[in-house]
Amino acid sequence: MRDLTQSVSVEQYAQRSHAALRATEARFDPLSGRWTIFAPERDRRPDDFAVSAAVETRKDCPFCGGNELASPPSVWIGTLDEHTRHVFTDGGERKNWSVRVVPNLYPAVAPQNQAGSFTTESPLLQRRAARGAHEVFIESRDHVASLSRLDLAEVQLTFLAFRDRLLHWRSSGEIGYISIFKNVGHRAGASLVHSHSQLLATDRVPRSIESNLARMHHHRSETGCCLQCDLIRAEQKAGQRIVWQDTELIAWCPFAGRMPMLLRITSLAHQACFEALAESTIDAVAQLVYRAVGWLEAILPGTAYNLCLYTRPPAASDPADSFHWSIDLFPRMTELAGFELSSGCMISPVLPERAAARYRRIVAAEDPR
Amino acid sequence: MRDLTQSVSVEQYAQRSHAALRATEARFDPLSGRWTIFAPERDRRPDDFAVSAAVETRKDCPFCGGNELASPPSVWIGTLDEHTRHVFTDGGERKNWSVRVVPNLYPAVAPQNQAGSFTTESPLLQRRAARGAHEVFIESRDHVASLSRLDLAEVQLTFLAFRDRLLHWRSSGEIGYISIFKNVGHRAGASLVHSHSQLLATDRVPRSIESNLARMHHHRSETGCCLQCDLIRAEQKAGQRIVWQDTELIAWCPFAGRMPMLLRITSLAHQACFEALAESTIDAVAQLVYRAVGWLEAILPGTAYNLCLYTRPPAASDPADSFHWSIDLFPRMTELAGFELSSGCMISPVLPERAAARYRRIVAAEDPR
Repeated sequence: MRDLTQSVSVEQYAQRSHAALRATEARFDPLSGRWTIFAPERDRRPDDFAVSAAVETRKDCPFCGGNELASPPSVWIGTLDEHTRHVFTDGGERKNWSVRVVPNLYPAVAPQNQAGSFTTESPLLQRRAARGAHEVFIESRDHVASLSRLDLAEVQLTFLAFRDRLLHWRSSGEIGYISIFKNVGHRAGASLVHSHSQLLATDRVPRSIESNLARMHHHRSETGCCLQCDLIRAEQKAGQRIVWQDTELIAWCPFAGRMPMLLRITSLAHQACFEALAESTIDAVAQLVYRAVGWLEAILPGTAYNLCLYTRPPAASDPADSFHWSIDLFPRMTELAGFELSSGCMISPVLPERAAARYRRIVAAEDPR
Repeated sequence: MRDLTQSVSVEQYAQRSHAALRATEARFDPLSGRWTIFAPERDRRPDDFAVSAAVETRKDCPFCGGNELASPPSVWIGTLDEHTRHVFTDGGERKNWSVRVVPNLYPAVAPQNQAGSFTTESPLLQRRAARGAHEVFIESRDHVASLSRLDLAEVQLTFLAFRDRLLHWRSSGEIGYISIFKNVGHRAGASLVHSHSQLLATDRVPRSIESNLARMHHHRSETGCCLQCDLIRAEQKAGQRIVWQDTELIAWCPFAGRMPMLLRITSLAHQACFEALAESTIDAVAQLVYRAVGWLEAILPGTAYNLCLYTRPPAASDPADSFHWSIDLFPRMTELAGFELSSGCMISPVLPERAAARYRRIVAAEDPR
């Protein structure tokens, strides 16, 4: 309960504001070309709503082992047999699957051969079929709600499935852009609890991705360097926002991250495409993401979160070496409100260096090296 | 409960998909330059979460009459005395206020004279103070949770406050962009239940707004016409998405609206700035918005929603006549998930012509003319 007997006087308001307002800043993200406002004091705002993080479990889950008939037939199956993994890319079913990939039963886009045709009656009311592919990665036979509750081997198998489906759609010749993402919890856009990821491939490249590609290409042309590599070097020099790194991979909270507590993961060596990484590196990425979700949940137990994988779009017209794959992981702490939705400018209550410090405390407790 | 004994066979999947996939389309919005995917079948997806629309009321509300000391001093006050309204723009308090405007106690931006200074250490890690103004419109003395529960006179007074504060900040010389918006309900980003709107003014124009301005300017240069006026004419010709119009105002569901059930309101006569409208027109806009929120709540009782007012930014460098003010009203039916947040491409489960038909059924019941 807020105490309204403690009223805010003009003097108190002026004083309280001073520190808060001086801490308020905007930061420019060279990747998206967007400024993000950081107003760290805003997370002290009173909240009239109490949101329960409770996760509901249901027996009638279409993703659980034994209910395979409730989803379309598999296009990819991975099995784990005493730590030996086998991958079947020929479709069909296997009773002992550990990870399955199936077409989404409620796709957002239509396969090339099933798309409708649309006539545009006015140049101002343009329409076309939404063509592409929409698949679901079912990450376990068991009804677990978060990546962190899987076995590491299941997570690694899932990331191999990401690679294989990216390779599949990249070579199909009909896809311009491929997004792989994970929604965990209702606030993050999930409609089913059972741990799963999605692939959504479209014939065209979305405008904001085109715009990112153009900026990365411009930087490469001007400097001869990859923008992501240069950003990582700038972050390493600044030293404040690195959460974890070894000789191969890095996890950090980007200086101008658009979402609070956003953690970015990529390879230190320049690489445009996630799906071009060596299998051993993909295993290491899966392990790092698995740990990172654990860090996040140690800070915000039961939080909803998203994971987004960026890889060079098949239709990118820039030279291959200007893009650099990455994975963004972020909890859903704030709702996008009228300002963000109308202006495209995000307001985050958490400075990335504070976010990084919170993650590092968890990492230190996990691994005292 | 879903019935999993009714499994989905390959044949059923193919058949179910056919209609759904043919209905899946992408549409281009000339204002934002973005394609939006429409996948109408997706709202039949099962949902593991039940969201309660219950609105909590609290006695310790800083916006309620009698608790004025819990917020900063007013910068604008409107009173209603037997249907006669008085407006006080000199600040200070009046016991019988009906609508108050106060600085936001937790501002996202800092006033020009209170902003901090930030040094940029690397050209890749640019930072600057987030300068501007952040104000709250408290729309009633009473603890009501939605615009539709106010008296019409309160709503009209609020819209006059919008005009006055827009005029104030436009003439301040330090503001580039002014957003007025309303968040109702937690899913829409509200942290307080008591009916209120916000003004957030920034020194610079956000990139996506710049980009909209550029497109409107381009259209004006190419055709000699306002893009919004031309879009309205195209919608009137198509005839499917108009919800309501008279000789002065129009409400419609735009062909490529980014959010499900989005309703747009503007004047039929070309006008760049909301704050330049005649007072009688502002009263009519307020009345139409008041009714529109009622239509929305008749369709989706207790829904969270946002309202966003677009007016020509003070720093717009295009000729004044290429912009056209508007108000967008939309419920929060879906969460922005990993795909939308990473690609900037929205996925809406509701076609705008279906949305318009739903609104029109309510309008017909409300007003049988």
